[in-house]
Amino acid sequence: MSSNHDDRHDDAGGAATDPVRRRFLKTAGALAGGAVAAAPFAASGRSPEDFGVAPRHLHEPGKGSMMFMEDHAHDHDRHILPGAPDDVDYRVFDMTFDLIEHELLPGVKFPAFAFNEQVPGPVFRVQENDWIEVNVTNNTEEMHTIHWHGVDLIYTMDGVPMMSHDPVHPGETFTYRFQARPHGTRFYHCHWGTPLHMMSALHGAFIIDSPNDPIREQFPYERDYVLVLESFDLEFTREHINEVLEGMGQVNKLMRDGRLSAATHGFFKRYEDFVKAIEEGWRPPYTRGNAPGGTITPNFFAINGKSYPSTVGEHGHLRIRQGEYIRIRLINGGISDHHMHLHGHQFWKVAEDGNPLPYPIKLNTVPVTPGKTVDIIVYGDNPGFWDFHDHKEIHSRNNGIYPGGMITMLEYEDMGDPPYVPSTTINQ
Amino acid sequence: MSSNHDDRHDDAGGAATDPVRRRFLKTAGALAGGAVAAAPFAASGRSPEDFGVAPRHLHEPGKGSMMFMEDHAHDHDRHILPGAPDDVDYRVFDMTFDLIEHELLPGVKFPAFAFNEQVPGPVFRVQENDWIEVNVTNNTEEMHTIHWHGVDLIYTMDGVPMMSHDPVHPGETFTYRFQARPHGTRFYHCHWGTPLHMMSALHGAFIIDSPNDPIREQFPYERDYVLVLESFDLEFTREHINEVLEGMGQVNKLMRDGRLSAATHGFFKRYEDFVKAIEEGWRPPYTRGNAPGGTITPNFFAINGKSYPSTVGEHGHLRIRQGEYIRIRLINGGISDHHMHLHGHQFWKVAEDGNPLPYPIKLNTVPVTPGKTVDIIVYGDNPGFWDFHDHKEIHSRNNGIYPGGMITMLEYEDMGDPPYVPSTTINQ
Amino acid sequence: MSSNHDDRHDDAGGAATDPVRRRFLKTAGALAGGAVAAAPFAASGRSPEDFGVAPRHLHEPGKGSMMFMEDHAHDHDRHILPGAPDDVDYRVFDMTFDLIEHELLPGVKFPAFAFNEQVPGPVFRVQENDWIEVNVTNNTEEMHTIHWHGVDLIYTMDGVPMMSHDPVHPGETFTYRFQARPHGTRFYHCHWGTPLHMMSALHGAFIIDSPNDPIREQFPYERDYVLVLESFDLEFTREHINEVLEGMGQVNKLMRDGRLSAATHGFFKRYEDFVKAIEEGWRPPYTRGNAPGGTITPNFFAINGKSYPSTVGEHGHLRIRQGEYIRIRLINGGISDHHMHLHGHQFWKVAEDGNPLPYPIKLNTVPVTPGKTVDIIVYGDNPGFWDFHDHKEIHSRNNGIYPGGMITMLEYEDMGDPPYVPSTTINQ
Repeated sequence: MSSNHDDRHDDAGGAATDPVRRRFLKTAGALAGGAVAAAPFAASGRSPEDFGVAPRHLHEPGKGSMMFMEDHAHDHDRHILPGAPDDVDYRVFDMTFDLIEHELLPGVKFPAFAFNEQVPGPVFRVQENDWIEVNVTNNTEEMHTIHWHGVDLIYTMDGVPMMSHDPVHPGETFTYRFQARPHGTRFYHCHWGTPLHMMSALHGAFIIDSPNDPIREQFPYERDYVLVLESFDLEFTREHINEVLEGMGQVNKLMRDGRLSAATHGFFKRYEDFVKAIEEGWRPPYTRGNAPGGTITPNFFAINGKSYPSTVGEHGHLRIRQGEYIRIRLINGGISDHHMHLHGHQFWKVAEDGNPLPYPIKLNTVPVTPGKTVDIIVYGDNPGFWDFHDHKEIHSRNNGIYPGGMITMLEYEDMGDPPYVPSTTINQ
Repeated sequence: MSSNHDDRHDDAGGAATDPVRRRFLKTAGALAGGAVAAAPFAASGRSPEDFGVAPRHLHEPGKGSMMFMEDHAHDHDRHILPGAPDDVDYRVFDMTFDLIEHELLPGVKFPAFAFNEQVPGPVFRVQENDWIEVNVTNNTEEMHTIHWHGVDLIYTMDGVPMMSHDPVHPGETFTYRFQARPHGTRFYHCHWGTPLHMMSALHGAFIIDSPNDPIREQFPYERDYVLVLESFDLEFTREHINEVLEGMGQVNKLMRDGRLSAATHGFFKRYEDFVKAIEEGWRPPYTRGNAPGGTITPNFFAINGKSYPSTVGEHGHLRIRQGEYIRIRLINGGISDHHMHLHGHQFWKVAEDGNPLPYPIKLNTVPVTPGKTVDIIVYGDNPGFWDFHDHKEIHSRNNGIYPGGMITMLEYEDMGDPPYVPSTTINQ
Repeated sequence: MSSNHDDRHDDAGGAATDPVRRRFLKTAGALAGGAVAAAPFAASGRSPEDFGVAPRHLHEPGKGSMMFMEDHAHDHDRHILPGAPDDVDYRVFDMTFDLIEHELLPGVKFPAFAFNEQVPGPVFRVQENDWIEVNVTNNTEEMHTIHWHGVDLIYTMDGVPMMSHDPVHPGETFTYRFQARPHGTRFYHCHWGTPLHMMSALHGAFIIDSPNDPIREQFPYERDYVLVLESFDLEFTREHINEVLEGMGQVNKLMRDGRLSAATHGFFKRYEDFVKAIEEGWRPPYTRGNAPGGTITPNFFAINGKSYPSTVGEHGHLRIRQGEYIRIRLINGGISDHHMHLHGHQFWKVAEDGNPLPYPIKLNTVPVTPGKTVDIIVYGDNPGFWDFHDHKEIHSRNNGIYPGGMITMLEYEDMGDPPYVPSTTINQ
């Protein structure tokens, strides 16, 4: 680490009600040169509790790389990885991988892997070409990484385990360093055991601002909302987290004893070793019938960690005034496809995957499919309370009960005395 | 109601073979200034029959608003709702919510909620900026509303229960009044119990014409087809309709007796009341395991209420002549994603969500995802009989048997003596 | 057949390691005026073996058209079908329908219908406006056809059974003749029993080149990759193949004996006959509960016939050099939706359904939904090993085990000594 980043040390903070988060937002807002309304929904689940899964046990940092199990070309100090220069100023962020209990809405909690003990992870807001340093500590018994989705960084910082770098082991701190580019709505998520870890819920927004943002030039918005769209199969998550923690317990023990081998886990230095192991009788797990969670059927859906009706009212939703442009950044943090429909308005779809479109497209329903971010601009010309929800209505339910899940509301702040005031309904 | 709309009184009519419908089409066609071929498929199920679900019982109109259960800020006459002026001419339409038995294809009937006893509901064709009045009477034992999808109207007419207005109670007549804008292919559907009610099959086309339609200027089409794409889980529908009618029977009784409360249904004036009820031990239904229909797996698919092979031949399909442009308006009335592939042609996708695209896009397969309408233009330059079907082939089946469901045909009328004439096959 | 095509006789060949394939590629490459890297993945399963399904039994060619079961307007010689002129030069290809055993990755084999005994079928590369003749012989006990998806040909060559021509019977050779147009990335697949036959795995790429390709003019690429994206429900395939072969055995016997009728199979000359049969008490199969495979839930996913990790390393993956443009043609050969995400790069989406877009769109994740082809251009400006995978992560698994399935890698060939070298992991 260079010594010059202490003066730029930021915590990747929580929601707007959290002091840490406020500090982060203040810095980022100043840098972005504009108002920020990135987290209208309340964060929750920040007090980890016992939730009936395997107990935590931290390894000594720096020990137990899975690759130490045999000769490994990269047995260097894993904390000084190649890919980033030393002679630049870094903005430094501290992150953690945690196992928490998260409340989606009153009455529904589940064990979740989470960044910084919150769902979703903190919103990053940086300037294009900023140099970023993220020190992430793994407080769980499971492997993890961070993939910076849509960021054009050096491949050794890309977070794909066994393709760009080793996974971050339990108890270990890993340092990511890269330049934030190109500008736009991007995100980050764990890339180890991806189906489980994205869904439960290791993901967050990574917003790269630009002083010359063509979208702001065309649509002079001030308020800027980030909505991470999430789907959860709570049964799958509960079962699978216990399963992986149990399996990792065995792996961790074997690693400590230096007895981890391909025969006990599915890692091979060369593809030929994999083929040879099978020819010699090793039976890969995919031939043994479906794994736990072979079928994933999400039954809860959320926006920024909350399911309707916890997505509206005081818990935060979208606000606008007449004559105002707002920008909404939609990020698909899960594996389902969502089709966000805004009532009473046509909006402009202005960016996809963070990149501005050649021409804005006027819509009222926008698909946000897996791996996608979509930016839309809404113009305030129709005062009222307006439904904004996934039109694939099975996602607008809580455990099969409509309405719920991926529903929120756009509210005009300057309506005066409205002729009808929404109430809360959870069972139609 | 103002007194000046009697001279513009239209019924929202049925299919082309229905006298009521013909009257409507004639008016609309004249207003649209062009030929209309909006309903090539036959309507059916117009004679309600006994189908083994709960019997109908109509309330007195105007009685029993669910909101009367406690103090309610809007205990005004619900038939004079805010949002529309009195000093304009309205085009008046009469609509009903009904419970009918609908035949998808020979041998397959199911109980369906339907507008005006037909599946899908009648096609509206109005001019941009027309003032519309729809008096809809609820002939069922279940709550309903009409959401005017993609129409920029006042929010109190938007049809989202408990957000824009109270639901329409059994036996009640509700009046929607709004200005039809912006022009394009739009639709309407029930927004109460949306997953069930859209799927079974409370939806229909709402076409807003403009004398300056840029699409017609670029592609001088005359014939104009409306295809509502539908998916049905018949088991879910049968079970869920019985379930909701039974539940509503209890609710209706409690309402009549003035004993309806949050404890007996999931309605709360304030979000805080909801949270408090749970803290005091009330168990919301979403914590009780999946509801009936927690899993929805449609097994029948239809175009304008009919499944292949009842979508071709005399029952109506798409017709074209050499050198002719036709417009096809595709509306997703359900919750599945459809991928309409036309054989032998590249067509232009010209509008999405009713709004013209900046540039037409040349395709042969167009996704129509939930909540979407897509308009395409086909040019007649390849005479023959051409398959037009969902390329997600599980939707081109009837109850798992291929071919079926979402298949229809484009036929050239000026082929002369064709070298091969299609026959009917229902089992490959 | 005209006599002038012998000098243009090509085999539609296999992968790059196959002599037949090399011959085909050489010809096509020369015609395309550029290098071709169309099949980076190895083909396999070319040696049919016994796999526990019904034994093969070939009919005499030309016998047993299903349509001979009753009066048929087209009892002409089925091998001289209308639709193509005799006075042009044809490029002639020989194809077969086969039932093989295909290996997706070590340890996983399944019975597959395949073109030319390979999965996917051979890559066609032809020039726009070439006249094509394909003689396809059915070596299976099941009906088949070839639909040329996205090609604007005469309808009698379109491959929709009972709509454009009779299916190709067991033992029969059928001749397709058509002009290849318009240029772009197109494909072909069986259209008989489509859900099963596309999925298992009767599909392949059909690339129509143009000397004036606007995409190459804008992005001067040389290497050109074809990736067919596939999804397989192995249980469904095993059960359904046995089912259809058993059913076809009965049908074939009845045909041979001249006793095939509507009562024994679902074929009707007129729609009215179908309705009448039902009215007289015939019970169509779709009323008998779900068919085998009524639910299709793919558990294996593949690119060009191979699942990760057999999609990387020596088995072939995407290669690029710094400063180079490559074109990747993505073809959805199955019924699932895929969302291909490339790490470390923004790429240009340049064509959809084979047709160039009005403007390239910069993305890092591109949906390839059912029935679609999508072309993207990648520019080599970020050396490394880069994940390229379906971001709907349930498709990045083998039988529920992550990682697997639809994952491959983009590798820079001019990296020098990379700081990190990928290894193989099959269980996270």
